[in-house]
This record gives sequence, structure tokens and C-alpha cells, in this order.
Amino acid sequence: MEALSSYTKMIEAGLSTLDFPKTPERLYDPLRYFLQIGGKRIRPVLTILGAELFGADFKIALPQALAIETFHNFTLIHDDIMDEAPLRRNQTTVHEKWNRDVAILSGDVLLVKAYQLLAQINPKQLPEALDLFNRTAAEVCEGQQMDMDFEERQDVTVPEYIEMIRLKTSILLGGALTMGAIVANASAEDKKHIYDFGQYIGIAFQIQDDILDLYADPKKFGKQVGGDVIANKKTLLHLTAIGACSSEQLSVLKQLQSEKNLEIKIEKTRSLFDHLGVKESCRIRMDEYYQKALFSLEKVSVNESNKVELRHLAAYLMEREL
Amino acid sequence: MEALSSYTKMIEAGLSTLDFPKTPERLYDPLRYFLQIGGKRIRPVLTILGAELFGADFKIALPQALAIETFHNFTLIHDDIMDEAPLRRNQTTVHEKWNRDVAILSGDVLLVKAYQLLAQINPKQLPEALDLFNRTAAEVCEGQQMDMDFEERQDVTVPEYIEMIRLKTSILLGGALTMGAIVANASAEDKKHIYDFGQYIGIAFQIQDDILDLYADPKKFGKQVGGDVIANKKTLLHLTAIGACSSEQLSVLKQLQSEKNLEIKIEKTRSLFDHLGVKESCRIRMDEYYQKALFSLEKVSVNESNKVELRHLAAYLMEREL
Repeated sequence: MEALSSYTKMIEAGLSTLDFPKTPERLYDPLRYFLQIGGKRIRPVLTILGAELFGADFKIALPQALAIETFHNFTLIHDDIMDEAPLRRNQTTVHEKWNRDVAILSGDVLLVKAYQLLAQINPKQLPEALDLFNRTAAEVCEGQQMDMDFEERQDVTVPEYIEMIRLKTSILLGGALTMGAIVANASAEDKKHIYDFGQYIGIAFQIQDDILDLYADPKKFGKQVGGDVIANKKTLLHLTAIGACSSEQLSVLKQLQSEKNLEIKIEKTRSLFDHLGVKESCRIRMDEYYQKALFSLEKVSVNESNKVELRHLAAYLMEREL
Repeated sequence: MEALSSYTKMIEAGLSTLDFPKTPERLYDPLRYFLQIGGKRIRPVLTILGAELFGADFKIALPQALAIETFHNFTLIHDDIMDEAPLRRNQTTVHEKWNRDVAILSGDVLLVKAYQLLAQINPKQLPEALDLFNRTAAEVCEGQQMDMDFEERQDVTVPEYIEMIRLKTSILLGGALTMGAIVANASAEDKKHIYDFGQYIGIAFQIQDDILDLYADPKKFGKQVGGDVIANKKTLLHLTAIGACSSEQLSVLKQLQSEKNLEIKIEKTRSLFDHLGVKESCRIRMDEYYQKALFSLEKVSVNESNKVELRHLAAYLMEREL
């Protein structure tokens, strides 16, 4: 998607102007390092698109877009500690490259930096922007805690799972768009619709992620197909299977979790899922959220021509082959 | 100090009204637990006193006072992870009672909560309050990083040490007072003076802490006298000694750092420090900051009668026997 890449460049340029103090080096070097690792910068792009949707110039929403992106990176630095992840986008994570304490503290100060960027706004809009940002930030933490709690639970339901991904990842998309809408002085109704668009697209995208993990074309998929199955992750596929299977199938599924031969583990799990219609069921759910997202975008009271970029972005996010 | 205890009660009452969500339990239970561990609540009391100094009612500054206290507790939860401290005020720390990840994430959401409390302010004052809060928060992180860096350095100077304690602990006292002054619509000059009062008192208090560690009356001191010496901490006493001693004395000091008999270690270190006049030198430095603090308070353009509480509090903080 060509338009996306021009927006991404805009964000990269903005990030490169962030002037972290030189010292203490071990507080700010990790941030300089981590912020240049890259990514598609979808969230800050959404803030820009949210502002443009309502007729505002991208420039006035740039600090808030960067606030969203620095917040997102703060969560990644801390999540990487919790997940004990050695790599992020094929680069060494902060706690691996430095250490745990550096990752905690530089993450903390990055969250503060996000608030500093957020504050670069028309003072009249600050209370609303801060309120949205605080609510979003707290909910993202709640989603992350739910995700960790789920690892230790055996009775997670599909609605609970959807609520977890909504909080952990989707509402930040809604919040990012709404932040742009606030800067552009959109109406309360339009802010609600654009928030919903973001969170529904986010849920659909996460469901797609779960499906792709097991059903992607290995040639096109960037990572190992079946990674979630190997790790016994409670994805939507797994929870859907649990909900649909007989007690015999349940015990097969449980046995498969301790299967040592990974090829067999993936193959047999996929075969059981296919038998249960898991992929189709998840795809239907994904489409429901995608349609809800498009319906929310339709309700936004601006010219259709203003919505083109967001429609393209939504289609782009959902276009990975299933 | 009787007045302090009535203010402390005010803060405790305010903290007890904070309504954290019930779930996720492992995100919010740690906060309910940690915030009731207690303490003198000096920082939020300073916010209240800062508001009253300029004629405002304590009630309008209460949310901002609670913002300061929740921020302080966020730093404690994360610092405890970094220090691997099992206890805080004789209670189990969050990472010990739950685990590292719970402590990271509940600390994060507590910082967000601090911003939510801060936002409960007259919208006209929000930009300035947020700016002060952000600056203070970033500097506290910088001070914490400097402190950790110092553990690995052998060439820390006295001015660097003073700058570290200024950032790590003192400016939060200045920031707390100034937050009250903002709520009370104090003038720019008065806000500067009250900030200085806070940070100078903070530095004097920290120096006093360093002195007391080795020179307190064991009967009156709450913890083991000489704890910093045992841990080979680079306190102001230590750095002052380094700056004053001959190369022979320096090698004695270095040998003492690996002395196994702790009584002898403390005794001989104290004796060397006495010989070098370390205590007296530190006390002079402490008094300088105390006088600077009082001088800053003098410059605040309100009636002397309004300053009584702050003078009492300053004297109370500095009254521990040296």
C-alpha cells in the first residue's frame, strides 16, 4: 500500500526529531535504539488519518501521533521483559541488550515522554486528549494482565478472549484514531464511530493473526507456521476447538499438547481443527468484526472521499491470505 | 509534629477513596495492598501545604496531592524490583508477594492512575500542571538511573552525587509543593521559590540520612547503624572521605570494604572518617542546603503566618539528632 508508506515516512521523520537528553546514557540510549527498530507505525498513522478524515492538516496531529507510537513502544519494552523475548523484529530486545533494570526504567521514562508529546496540543483539547490517553493506557495494561492470567487458566472462554485482545491491542487503534479526531475537533458522535472502527478492525486483525499462525502459506508467512500450536497458546482457534469438540476429541487435543514430534503435533492439531470447522468459524467471526468496522466508518459524517485512505488501510490490514 | 499527622490523615482518607477496578485482580490488588502500607505521606502533604501557603483550600489540591503520592508509589514498586528488595516498611514488596511481571505492570498502571488524578484540575491549570509533572517524572527516572550507574563507577564526585539525590528524591518535594502552588494560582516567582525550598530541603534531608546511617544513636535509629558501610555504598560520607584522604588512607578504606568482621569494619571506617572530619564536613553541607531552603521560603511573597506550617515541617524533617 503506497499511501501507507508515505505516512510511515512522515512518522519516521517525526520520531527522528525526538530529542532525548544525552545522559544518563543507559536511560536514553535504549530509547534511541528501540525507536529506530522500525515497524509499519500503523498506530501513529491512524492518528494522522483520524485528523485528516475530519479535515485537519497532518502536522497539527503529529505530536499526538508520536505520543501514541512512543506509548506503544513503552508497552513493547515492558512486554518483552515479561515474555523474556530475546528478539523484537529480529533485533535484540532492550532487556537483552542492556538488562532488566534498564528496560524497566527506560520503559518508564518513555511513557512519560509519551505524555510530554501528548501535551503539545491546543490547551483547549488537552483535557479530552489526556482523558482518552489515560483510559486507553490503563486498558492496555488490563489487557496485558488478562493475557498473562490466561496462561495459567484452563477455563478461558471465547468472549473473555475477545475482550482480552480488545483491551490489549484493539483499543489502542481506536484511541489512536480518536486522538486525531480530537485534534481535528470532530463531533462526539463521529469520535465514537471512529473509535469503534479502530477497535473492530483491531479485533478482526488479531483474529486473522491467530488463523494465519496455523493456516498461512509457509512461503509467504514471515515466521514458523504453527508457532502458537507448538507453544500451546490459547488462541481463538484453540478456544473455538475446545468449545466445539467432544470429550474424546478434547482428550486427543490435550494429548497433542505434550506431543514431542512438532510436525506431528501441528499436523494432527490442524486436522482436528479442520474436522471441527475451526478455521471457518474463526473466519466468520473475523468477518463480523471487519463488517462492524466498515459499518462504523460509514456512520462517520464526512464525505466519502475523505474515508478512502482509511478504507484502503483497513483492506490492506485484512488482505493477508487466509 | 501534630499538624503533620492531621494532614497525613487527610491524605490517607483521600487514598482510601481511590476506586481501582476489581479486575484484573492481579493488576489492581497489588496497588490496593501497596498504597495501604503507609508512610508519612510527606510528598502529598507538601502539595496541600503548597496550596494553603497561597490561600487555597486543601480540598481543591487533594487530587493533585494524590497524584504525587501515587507517582511516588509507582517509583517505589519499580525500584523495589531493581533493588531486589524483599521488604518495604516491613511489608513484603509487590514483586515478592506476587512476582516481577505483576510488579512491572501494576507499577505501570499506577503511573497512569497518577496522571488520571492529576487531570482532576481546573482545565486552565492543566497544561502547566502536566508540564511540571512530566518534567519531574522524567528527572526522577534520570536520578534513579544515575544511582544505578554509580554502583558500577569508582570515580563518582561529590557534585555528581548531589545532582543524583537532587533528581532522584529532592525535586519530587519541590514538584509536590509547586503543584499545590499551581492549583492556588501562585505567581511565577513564588512557584520558583517554593520549588527551590522543596528541592533544597530534600537535599539536606538526604545528606542527613547519609550521616545518620553511621552516626545515629542505635537506640533511636530504626535500622542497623552502619548499613551503608556494610554494603559499601557510595554515600556522601564515603565520597567526602575519598576526596579528603591520603593515598595511604585510601588503601586502608579499600581494604576495609572487604573486611569480613562487620563490627570492625564499621568501627574502623567511622574512626577513619572521624580523623578526616567527614561528619563535620557533611553536616556543614547539609546546613548550607537547609539555609538555602529557608532563604527560598523567605522570598515567597505571602504573610509570614502562612509559612508557619512549612517552617515547622522543615524543622521536623531536619530535627533527627546528628
